[in-house]
This record gives sequence, structure tokens and C-alpha cells, in this order.
Amino acid sequence: MPGNLLARYVPDAPLWRDGATLGVRLHGMATTISTAPDATQLRTRLDKAAKQAASADTDALLIAPGSDMRYLLGVGGESHERLSCLVLPANGRDPVLVVPRLEAPGYADVPLDDLGVQLHTWVDGTDPYQLVAEAADKPRQVALSDTTQAVHVFGFHTALPEARQALAGPVLRELRMRKDDAEVAALREAGAAIDRVHARMGEWLRPGRTEAEVAADVCEAIVAEGHTHVAFVTVGAGPNGASPHHDVSDRVIADNDVVVVDIGGPLPSGYNSDCTRTYALGAPSTDIADCYAVLEEAQRAAVHAVRPGARAQDIDDAARSIISAAGHAERFIHRTGHGIGLDVHEEPYIMGGNDLHLEPGMAFSVEPGIYFPGQWGARIEDIVVVTDDGVESLNRQPHSLVEL
Amino acid sequence: MPGNLLARYVPDAPLWRDGATLGVRLHGMATTISTAPDATQLRTRLDKAAKQAASADTDALLIAPGSDMRYLLGVGGESHERLSCLVLPANGRDPVLVVPRLEAPGYADVPLDDLGVQLHTWVDGTDPYQLVAEAADKPRQVALSDTTQAVHVFGFHTALPEARQALAGPVLRELRMRKDDAEVAALREAGAAIDRVHARMGEWLRPGRTEAEVAADVCEAIVAEGHTHVAFVTVGAGPNGASPHHDVSDRVIADNDVVVVDIGGPLPSGYNSDCTRTYALGAPSTDIADCYAVLEEAQRAAVHAVRPGARAQDIDDAARSIISAAGHAERFIHRTGHGIGLDVHEEPYIMGGNDLHLEPGMAFSVEPGIYFPGQWGARIEDIVVVTDDGVESLNRQPHSLVEL
Repeated sequence: MPGNLLARYVPDAPLWRDGATLGVRLHGMATTISTAPDATQLRTRLDKAAKQAASADTDALLIAPGSDMRYLLGVGGESHERLSCLVLPANGRDPVLVVPRLEAPGYADVPLDDLGVQLHTWVDGTDPYQLVAEAADKPRQVALSDTTQAVHVFGFHTALPEARQALAGPVLRELRMRKDDAEVAALREAGAAIDRVHARMGEWLRPGRTEAEVAADVCEAIVAEGHTHVAFVTVGAGPNGASPHHDVSDRVIADNDVVVVDIGGPLPSGYNSDCTRTYALGAPSTDIADCYAVLEEAQRAAVHAVRPGARAQDIDDAARSIISAAGHAERFIHRTGHGIGLDVHEEPYIMGGNDLHLEPGMAFSVEPGIYFPGQWGARIEDIVVVTDDGVESLNRQPHSLVEL
Repeated sequence: MPGNLLARYVPDAPLWRDGATLGVRLHGMATTISTAPDATQLRTRLDKAAKQAASADTDALLIAPGSDMRYLLGVGGESHERLSCLVLPANGRDPVLVVPRLEAPGYADVPLDDLGVQLHTWVDGTDPYQLVAEAADKPRQVALSDTTQAVHVFGFHTALPEARQALAGPVLRELRMRKDDAEVAALREAGAAIDRVHARMGEWLRPGRTEAEVAADVCEAIVAEGHTHVAFVTVGAGPNGASPHHDVSDRVIADNDVVVVDIGGPLPSGYNSDCTRTYALGAPSTDIADCYAVLEEAQRAAVHAVRPGARAQDIDDAARSIISAAGHAERFIHRTGHGIGLDVHEEPYIMGGNDLHLEPGMAFSVEPGIYFPGQWGARIEDIVVVTDDGVESLNRQPHSLVEL
């Protein structure tokens, strides 16, 4: 291919394992644009981002394709070795969208005129970084999207050798982590969609099937319930449930296995679901049931701690202290949660040391886990959003260890 | 999810359009490891990379997850906001693989001991960049994978404020663009697989079907013919064929449409296919046939120009001069080709201004195109590899405008 449609379909590594069969059927999706914010909303976001940049001593934001660009333009573009970049000056000058001419049609739905965004295209053999430099107009400091590829970081530096470089993440997170009502509605819709998949787990999850076979059915259901595609699927049975990294394998699910199922993906809005439930095939032992009860209490306490003014680390503490008090501190080996929106992982991160004060509109996972290496594991995950006076959980399936 | 399996399944933007149905069935794949290079080959690559780094005044390579890591370790790892990095000192000290503890199981198949690679894991709340700094041992210059995310570029700078940063691309391309016999064999296998899909195009491509419907069948065939997944699918009918950026749409294919089909993806080896053919539904007009004959001649001339010692720009010239002489210079709007291997786009790029001298083992696409905006377009693409005394084409389907 002459273009660069590939980045989106070349995962870093295949999920699909030896002998595994995973079916993914993608169908009937609305376009990005039908659910994208309108020009007025985008204009507001661009203005706020410019203002936020100015307050961070930044003269221009250099926005990479991906979620940052989708948040500001409604279209995410494509990221690869050919530069695409939205240059957003902090001083009120027109933003400039620099893209390879080949790819300009991909931005046809961006309301450039309404947004006051100029489109500057370039062709192979010319220097796109100079276009960025001209648009940024002698900046003393530029801030780059956190996901900008190093090759472009260096390209910007060559074209703007006098400009200090900073990360745009701290600027943009001030906007992106405070969801507006439409964004919360989109996350609520995503939560309901993934809940419908968990509600059907009994159709697929049973002894004698492999994790991969179950995952194939779950993938089909994730799309059937309204996701544009599958972002991730974990089906971790028995000892595999003790590895939060695990995705799926050819392990045959056995009687009495405890199975961790962590699934999600984006809806046509671009906003993601992410929900974990743990299932028991047959009645769990007393040990397992007791331990699971601790996890359930920890997750509930953490959600209960969510309110405006609480700090991110308080939520982590709420879960961790209960798990620690039960003697399992060493078995809860990851942070309690992560923000979610256009990215599955974004600010705010719910972890020790993060003293960010929560505000209405912040959305994140609360997902403590307990893992016994080589034996079994369990995790409960809901997406929650901070409300004016507390918290709303966007996932509603029961938290109990579901016996199948 | 607590981990980060997501990056691989979250494309930048959905291919799937309003009302379109695309089916992708992924099945029966070999693991990465079964086809990965053995420890001896990897050791050789690590040694060569270290030597190449030293000759570029670089004290340590900081290798990001993705193709660079897969080339050197046989496993690509995962790239996201949590740092994973292979630190490869140029002075013969042991390489160090820094990864989140959660993700260590994903590297279980790397022959760490045989390679002399130390594994240093980290947990949330600790500083992974300090681990990198310790492993790099007071470097004066480090070189970063081109795809390293800016957030990590800045992290390295904070941990190693005295070290100059450079890109690792120029170092690694010296290795990666010269394929060894096993790599050429893997590309040959990929070429044969995608040829089998093109050979079957008549089963799917016919008037009355949408581009998206055709693409769905093509996707299934790409996987059925041995790819681990679909990397990209372009089905551009009529005016859509004139946009090299186009992927698929709901356009109903009409009688007399000319249709550009550009498809590919990786095999279990990790090495990619990429092949374009142009199809005519019904006998083409004289104008179209004449123009296509020019394109065919241009593509043939460019392939014919490939030999050791020729420069990359000479190959581009060979195609472009023929298209220009026929009066279509302005209709050939992209470079003639790109290298291919573990990435679909990599060095060497076949374009004006690239005076790289070709050597045996270099593999790249030769894919001139002619585009009439709003009307039709055509492209012919083969992957070729430079041999000791000329060129081998890895795609063997006829170049003619295939009448269906």
C-alpha cells in the first residue's frame, strides 16, 4: 500500500495463539462522525486547550493523531512515519492541521471552516516539520502529545531548535479527564453494552471449553452489543486468573475453576467500556469464598470513597487497606484503577501517591484484584463517574462470584 | 483491565463504516515463538546492533516494544504508558530488559539466559526510567527507537539529563533493511499467501456488491490463506480508486468500474505481505487501457532497475520518468515504494532524493499508481527483494488489468 492505513490494523503482537480460534465479526457500525461532537463543542475544546496551554507557558500545542486529535477535531487521523499534526497556538491565531496530501480525504468530515482551522498538506520529499514551525510562529515552548513518536519529536526539534519541548498530556488532561454530560452519557452507554455481554457469560463459559473458545464467543457478543470492535479480552481460568497480564490460552476450563473475564472496547462514540467479573464453575471452596468476600468488600469500599474532593490515592487506599487487613497485601499487585474515555487508559490514575482531588465528571475504573500465583485469581471492575455529590457506577452486573 | 493489552486492539480509527459489514475471522495461528529466530540468531543481531551503535557514537540503544524489540528479542512486547524498554549497551555489558512486573509473563519465551539479557521488573509507583539509567551506566549518548512515545522520551531525559538523545532508526535500519535468508523466505511465504487471495478475487468482486461486502470476503480469505490478521484492505472502485488513501466504503460497484485492491498483513513469522492489483469490471475503454499500459510499463521498468548498487531514487526515477513521459506526472502522487519486513512500512523508502545504494537482501514494494480524481485510478504493487545479481519478485499474479 502506498498510504498508511496499516498502523490501525497491525497490533504489536497477535493475541491469537497456537491452535486457538477467535472469531471477531465487525458489523453495522455508525461512522465516527455521526457520534462526534459538533463544531460548537469542538470550538469550545480548542479554545479551552489554547487557554490551558497559555497558562502552562506553552505557545503552541502539537497534537498527534489518536485520542488527543479526536477529542479536539472529532476525527483521530492516522499515526505513522508520515507526520500528521494539529498545531494549536495559545495566542489565538488559527490552528493549522498539517497532514500528508494523500490523507487529506480522511479529514473531510472535520468542520475546518467552523473551527477556523487551516489545512496545510504536504507531499513526500517536502519537509512537514517546517509547516509546523511556520504555524507555531517562533514559539518559546511547544507541548507535544504524549503519544507522539520519537521520530517526530526529533523532527520538531530540528525545525524549532530554539523552542523548549514539553508534554501536552498535563495540559490536555485538564480538559479530557473532566467529562461533560455527553461524554458521561457515552460512557454510560458503553457500560450498559458491556454489561449485556457479562449477563450472557453463562451461554459460553463452561468446563471442557478452552479459554480461547469462550473468548471467541465473547468477541462476537461484544460487537453484537454495539462496540465497533474488541479492544481486549481476558479469559483467565484457574492459575491463569492469577496473572493480570494473561489474555487467553488453549487451557481447557475445568470443574471448579475460578475464571477472571475482563473485556471491553469502544462504541461508535469512541468512548470505551471496560468491565471485569469473576466466575466460579461450581461452588467455590470456603477459602476462595472468604477471600472473594474480602475483594468484594474492598471494591465496594473504594467505590463508596469516590466523591468530589476525595483524592485519587484515597480510593486506592480504601481498597488496599481492606485487602491488606485481611493479610493479602502482597496479592494485590496493581493500582486500583485508571481513567477511561477515548482511551481505555488515561488520567486520572487511581494509585498511591496521586493526590489529585476528584471532581464531577471524572471517570475511572475501580478494580482491585487478589492473585494467588499458580492457583487462582479474582478481580472486580466497574467504571464509575464522579457526580456532584458522590458517585455513579456505570456497570450494574452483580459483583458476587457468579456460579455457573 | 488493570494491564495494558489494549493498545494492540484499539485501532486509531475504525475501518468499519455506516451500514458496512466486514467479517474478520482469526484462527489457527502459530505462536510468535514457533516462528521466531533462535537464540543464536538473536544473539548475533544483538551483537551487531551493539556494534552499530558504538560506530554511531551511541553508548546505549533504548529499544521500544514493537518491531525493533521483536527483531532483537523475538517478542515484540507491548507499548503504552507503562514503560517497557530493552537497554542495549554498546560496550558489551549485558542488555537489560525493563518491563512492568505485570507483563513479565509476556516475555517468558525470550531466551534471556542464552542472550545474556537481564530482566529488571518494576511496579506501579516506582520509577522505571531510573532502571534504564542504571542499565545504561552514565551514557553520553543514547539512541531511542523511532516509535518511542514522547512520554518516554521525556522520561529518559529526566533520568539521564546529561545524555544526548538520538534516534535508533538509523542504527537499526542498517540491520533490519538487510534481510537474511530466513527473513527473505518469510517474505516469500507472505507474498505467496497474498497472491492466493488475489487469485480468488473473481469470486467476490462483481457489480452490485459494495466495496465493504467485497472487503469482508477478502478479509476472511487473507486469514484463511495463512495471515495472523488483516493489516489493511483497500477496495477502491471507480472514483474511489483515485484516492490512494481510500480503504472501503458502501459504494456499490458498477459495471465498467476499475477497482484498486491493495491488501496485506503479517504471517505468523511477523513478516508482512502487501500487494496491489487493479481489476476491470467489463472491457476497459481505450483511454483506460492505454493509460494502464503506461502504468504496467512503468512498474516493469522500475522492477527491472532493481539490482545491487542501484540507488533507491533510481527505482523511483525509472517508474516516474515513464509516467511523466506519457503526460501523467501530476497523476502519480506518491513515492514508488517502501521497505517491508516486520513493519509494513520501513526502510528503504523508494523515493526521489534517497541515494541509498541497494544491496542484496533489501526488500521493498514497487507500486507506481496513476490517479484521475473523481474518475478512476490504478496501481500495481509487487514486493521485490534485491538478489546477488538482480531482483526477485515475491508476487507472481499477472500485472494486467484483470477483467472480471
